[in-house]
Amino acid sequence: MTRSVGETGEFALVEAIGARLPPSDLPLGPGDDAAVVAAPDGRVVASTDMLVEGRHFRRDWSEPYDVGRKAAAANLADIAAMGARATALLVALAVPEDLPADWVLSLADGLRDEAAEVGAPVAGGDVVRSGVITVSVTALGTLEGRDPVTRAGAQPGQLVAVAGRLGWAAAGFAVLSRGFRSPRVLVEAHRRPAPPYDEGPRAAELGATAMIDISDSLVADLGHVAAASGVRIDVESAAFHVPPAFTDTARALSADPMAWLLAGGEDHALAACFPREVDLPMAWQIIGRVGEGEGVLVDGQTYAGPAGWRSF
Amino acid sequence: MTRSVGETGEFALVEAIGARLPPSDLPLGPGDDAAVVAAPDGRVVASTDMLVEGRHFRRDWSEPYDVGRKAAAANLADIAAMGARATALLVALAVPEDLPADWVLSLADGLRDEAAEVGAPVAGGDVVRSGVITVSVTALGTLEGRDPVTRAGAQPGQLVAVAGRLGWAAAGFAVLSRGFRSPRVLVEAHRRPAPPYDEGPRAAELGATAMIDISDSLVADLGHVAAASGVRIDVESAAFHVPPAFTDTARALSADPMAWLLAGGEDHALAACFPREVDLPMAWQIIGRVGEGEGVLVDGQTYAGPAGWRSF
Repeated sequence: MTRSVGETGEFALVEAIGARLPPSDLPLGPGDDAAVVAAPDGRVVASTDMLVEGRHFRRDWSEPYDVGRKAAAANLADIAAMGARATALLVALAVPEDLPADWVLSLADGLRDEAAEVGAPVAGGDVVRSGVITVSVTALGTLEGRDPVTRAGAQPGQLVAVAGRLGWAAAGFAVLSRGFRSPRVLVEAHRRPAPPYDEGPRAAELGATAMIDISDSLVADLGHVAAASGVRIDVESAAFHVPPAFTDTARALSADPMAWLLAGGEDHALAACFPREVDLPMAWQIIGRVGEGEGVLVDGQTYAGPAGWRSF
Repeated sequence: MTRSVGETGEFALVEAIGARLPPSDLPLGPGDDAAVVAAPDGRVVASTDMLVEGRHFRRDWSEPYDVGRKAAAANLADIAAMGARATALLVALAVPEDLPADWVLSLADGLRDEAAEVGAPVAGGDVVRSGVITVSVTALGTLEGRDPVTRAGAQPGQLVAVAGRLGWAAAGFAVLSRGFRSPRVLVEAHRRPAPPYDEGPRAAELGATAMIDISDSLVADLGHVAAASGVRIDVESAAFHVPPAFTDTARALSADPMAWLLAGGEDHALAACFPREVDLPMAWQIIGRVGEGEGVLVDGQTYAGPAGWRSF
């Protein structure tokens, strides 16, 4: 399909997207007024996020397939951060009339493939016209009988640990912002996060008391946990291992690699608090402790962050 | 709050919206990475729709409160059309930086109040910036143990009936398009649909074999039922009662009131097919029959529609 969205029409576009979806075992799949998704334990976890062109992605920096993967990942990570497994995605998409229909199909492929990583089908969607490409994703999930792991359960004395990549998307963003296209591994990390989906339910089973997906930055998102739990979180910078891929690039860009780790978002790593006695698997790296008080301290100090950084 | 969205900030705005929501009995309400919604029969019905300024609403024609009600209604009607009851709404909202924060709060109030009509709380949301106001709503619902009523179950010999208003939104749109602001009852109907939510589950209980919410137009949406069910639908124009409010306005605008009824959308009435022996309550008006064949005929003819009308 090399025609535009306008020439193709929303109905034909929705049909073409549907034709690219594999068969699912949903009780009722896409194509009707609504879909029906299994909720085996009598509850459904639900989260919604919106990505807007120019704010959350740029067409000259990211292929549509990667935008789709990223839009899905942002939501699927929210489900994982509750200790749940995703069961379905719903997608609403606003696109300009003159956008190639192929662009939309590639985006839909990316959404489908990211959801397939966790075994979640695309259950429904909507395509409308707008001057600004806007992707709104709702992810549904199941807690498999467990309690949800909220942001509010952290207790003084507990450990703070992280699973997944930190700072990679920020490093890739820094590279792209300076007009470079390499190192490729960082640019790719900006284009397509790789959240540790399975670690969410695993953390819940291990007894995690609070969990969050790192979408804004480690410090900002731990700040949400500290506020919701009524605790202070102490992060130790010595606990972080700066990826070798960061070192040369940080030097070339005169950037601080610790700032990418602490103040970078969009990798959708998971941060969780655990009782001290827990035997954490390799995927979880201990980075700090929960204490009495409020806010987040890095090495005992309020983290000032890189120039221009807002910690909300 | 007379400040703009930019001055207020997304976090404060989300907090202000949250503060205006009544307490709910959700297993987990808004404010975490995801919400948890009850799905008592082990399944959840889910539907998503997007409204874009300039395409689905105009700020000079509709108050933000009405835009919120309309955005919620479009999704809640999809849930009703499956024979389900809504259990929660999730909302993603993109707004320009210079939009008054009050505008956003009124929109959120409208979403909240329309959802409250069916007892569904707002379970979560996202607010981001964009040049174009975009409202994306996902509605969840429960089938209460019933089978979903899809578009695909109509059988030759069955009756076709409609619950809710037909053509009112189209009449209001025609009035506004000509620069008028009255009759108020029609303009209000365009601004705020009044879907017959309870009739969806009731139709399912009465044995409806196929159902759809009329968002595009009666003829177009019955066309979806005919295609999905592999049947022909015969609509009889004599079965329609033209509302007295239509007559004078149609004359003044040189419009055809039957076109509003047959080709107007956005009222989110429900159309359903029933076995002939069913004893239909007053809310359901019989407008036609299911036959062998394909497509939708009005008085035995393909409906040409008003000038400029596309039946998809």
